[in-house]
Amino acid sequence: MTDPFDDFEKIFHPRSMAFVGASGGFENAGTRLLLAHRECGFPGPLYAVNPKGNPVEGFPTYKSLLDIPGPVDHAYMAAPAQAMPQVIRECVEKGLHSVTVFTAGFRETGTPEGVALEEEIVAIAKEGGVRLIGPNCMGIYCPESGMSYRFDFPMRRGPLSLISQSGGVAISSIVTAEERGFGFEKVVSFGNECDITSAELLAHFGNDPRTEVIMAYIEGSRNPGELISAISDTGRVKPVIVLKGGTSEDGSRAAASHTGAMSGANITWEGAFKQANAIHVPTFEDFLDAALTFQRVKRPAGRRMSIISVSGGFCVMLTDMAVERGFEVPTISEKTIEDLKESFDFTGTSIKNPMDLARGFINYMEFEKLFSCLDEDECTDALLFLVSMEYITALDDRMPGFLDNMARALAEACSNINKTVMVAALYTNRDEDRQRFTKPLVEAGLAVYPTAERALDALNCMMNYYEVRERREGNS
Amino acid sequence: MTDPFDDFEKIFHPRSMAFVGASGGFENAGTRLLLAHRECGFPGPLYAVNPKGNPVEGFPTYKSLLDIPGPVDHAYMAAPAQAMPQVIRECVEKGLHSVTVFTAGFRETGTPEGVALEEEIVAIAKEGGVRLIGPNCMGIYCPESGMSYRFDFPMRRGPLSLISQSGGVAISSIVTAEERGFGFEKVVSFGNECDITSAELLAHFGNDPRTEVIMAYIEGSRNPGELISAISDTGRVKPVIVLKGGTSEDGSRAAASHTGAMSGANITWEGAFKQANAIHVPTFEDFLDAALTFQRVKRPAGRRMSIISVSGGFCVMLTDMAVERGFEVPTISEKTIEDLKESFDFTGTSIKNPMDLARGFINYMEFEKLFSCLDEDECTDALLFLVSMEYITALDDRMPGFLDNMARALAEACSNINKTVMVAALYTNRDEDRQRFTKPLVEAGLAVYPTAERALDALNCMMNYYEVRERREGNS
Repeated sequence: MTDPFDDFEKIFHPRSMAFVGASGGFENAGTRLLLAHRECGFPGPLYAVNPKGNPVEGFPTYKSLLDIPGPVDHAYMAAPAQAMPQVIRECVEKGLHSVTVFTAGFRETGTPEGVALEEEIVAIAKEGGVRLIGPNCMGIYCPESGMSYRFDFPMRRGPLSLISQSGGVAISSIVTAEERGFGFEKVVSFGNECDITSAELLAHFGNDPRTEVIMAYIEGSRNPGELISAISDTGRVKPVIVLKGGTSEDGSRAAASHTGAMSGANITWEGAFKQANAIHVPTFEDFLDAALTFQRVKRPAGRRMSIISVSGGFCVMLTDMAVERGFEVPTISEKTIEDLKESFDFTGTSIKNPMDLARGFINYMEFEKLFSCLDEDECTDALLFLVSMEYITALDDRMPGFLDNMARALAEACSNINKTVMVAALYTNRDEDRQRFTKPLVEAGLAVYPTAERALDALNCMMNYYEVRERREGNS
Repeated sequence: MTDPFDDFEKIFHPRSMAFVGASGGFENAGTRLLLAHRECGFPGPLYAVNPKGNPVEGFPTYKSLLDIPGPVDHAYMAAPAQAMPQVIRECVEKGLHSVTVFTAGFRETGTPEGVALEEEIVAIAKEGGVRLIGPNCMGIYCPESGMSYRFDFPMRRGPLSLISQSGGVAISSIVTAEERGFGFEKVVSFGNECDITSAELLAHFGNDPRTEVIMAYIEGSRNPGELISAISDTGRVKPVIVLKGGTSEDGSRAAASHTGAMSGANITWEGAFKQANAIHVPTFEDFLDAALTFQRVKRPAGRRMSIISVSGGFCVMLTDMAVERGFEVPTISEKTIEDLKESFDFTGTSIKNPMDLARGFINYMEFEKLFSCLDEDECTDALLFLVSMEYITALDDRMPGFLDNMARALAEACSNINKTVMVAALYTNRDEDRQRFTKPLVEAGLAVYPTAERALDALNCMMNYYEVRERREGNS
């Protein structure tokens, strides 16, 4: 008897794939999906299927799935919606394990025909033992197995798994991963969820030893109770970060025509997420920040924060922001102050907490000492370092290489400490220089945020999650 | 008799400047300030002053202000705090109009000596008729007159004037200006405000015909009533955007040691800002977004928003965000839908509001039509276009030049319409490509934001400001 986990897991590890509707060149969606899989290194056979047998250069092309000589485990459906019942029947006959229905034109159209067509393919698949993802979705990205529906997806894996009712949200999340330094184990864009549901995927990721953190973009569900219960069960063992679309009436209407989802009353969702200890974030940016934080940031022992910046004004504002989010910015120890005053003896530099480095900001030769002193300080749990790019770029103009040296020194100093450390590098001017600066930090395993507020929000999310989880574990 | 406005305005238009404490090369702060003024094109004579007469290459150097042969209107003080009383006496004797005391070590130290020293220089200056900015500040940036304390400040002016209790906040604001397309008339970093106060500066900018929008970063004031009244008076004629540091207890403590400011109870400030119809923003990013919006975005006739994106998920989320901020995302007219369906006839494209362009997103040849149809649509007041960079960069890799062509087409289409238009270009991956994409948009006069949320927040700020102002004007 097969283990249900292993059986479901097969969806993400097909030995071979067919692309139904792939025909001709790059202008065809099926062909693009097929080419992306090859370019991203899918190791098994890839087949093109279209009723006329129009060749797709470089791939064996067949008129029907049934003509393919070898076994096929998974198929992408990019053929027209009307053709779908017949093609799904062929999937059953060919003995496929699972299918991604990329094609739109089903329940999300809001028409009786669309709904009927969706119900028809579900019935055929259920009876034939084929599992369906979608329709109206992008399907699966799994770097480990080489499943990748876009050319530009990074192929380095990580411990995050994401389910997304929106293909666009999945794509934007995945392409951001490489630059910010997080990585995915599995991503499923599930669209109308006619067969495989968000709840089922969450439960699977909850059991998946390779998934450590779960992200979910959800617009609605036909079975909200089941979804919430899956979030709640999974959240007991792994963080589940939730972004919810369709919280307003106009947004709900948009969601209905997007994925046929019934968003339901927002207030109910909010309460349910809280009850389930889901990490419910308000924006796409917060969604990614939280994911980055759970993957890359060590949970601090407490809420005492050290703030380091180049400007007294930013020190003041960051302190306000930290306090608003339930952190403290306490006085640091006299020993730390004495030790650092030696190394940062500049007019305007203020060695306390928050720490205004002023001119000392560019004294990167002493960063190692700065971070190790704060690492040993008993009055603080976590460090937040704010980078104002314009001080660095101005000096880099006069002393080429300065920016790179400073970035390397900061990366090394931050990597050598045991405490939690977060870096916020503001976008001010010259994005390409910021990118050059943050690269060594990201490569050193650090979490870099575009604003201090976003760093603090994400850390607060992480701490709240574990606090609630432990309190509940203690009570049970 | 001199007009008080003209007399104060002289601070920003000195015929000549001296830099007291400038000595030797680039490692000296006074020398750096002096060099920055020359490099940024200050047209009048610039003098270096230090007691030993150490030369500063390329500038006439004197041992005392009194040795300078010609008239001096303004001096930057970078000499040690202890020397300040004597130097200010010399300013009086030489007949200077105003002085920027860059040097720190006064009230912000929290010591009786620091407070006494500050009081001493104020007394000398007051008696001698010299106005003081600072101490513990960066002073003035005024592109029109060539006053610029940093090499990397843009010299293109704009209609914004900024007062900032923090030099760092002023610097970060100014360097961001060029890339985002806004520009400053006058910026004053005023530090401890021992003589010239924030209230006085606000009143001056309120009367200044070259200033259209005012920004203020404030930590506290020795005379909060006067400050609030200045904000309120100025806010009746011009928008005043306020960012407040020191709202928490820890932040207040940081503010006290930063500029000697007493922040006072946050709740009082909040209420006072509201009463004064100040545009009170929570973060530095919101501060810049609001400034950009007041300078570059046309006030819409109403709150009906059209949302255009490449992804159904983002359409749903943007709609929610708009509604949360008091906007509507109503159905657009049948005529618009019919007209646009012709041009955007792609699978997955959804021509309604919000509009999911899907594959039509890259069909930039039709942007002109898209924007002009929405411009004529009677059901909408403002357009928000969300750019997901990853769709553009992926195509640009295969078709070099695609990104630039699309950016130009979008810039042109947006520029040709009468309605309000905002563009949000997300930072996902490849910041250098985003920069390349947004440049033509910014050059065409458009406002570009890093997230849709920030665009909507800023537009909401602008609309709220005018709504309150007009209601009060109606009542008076």
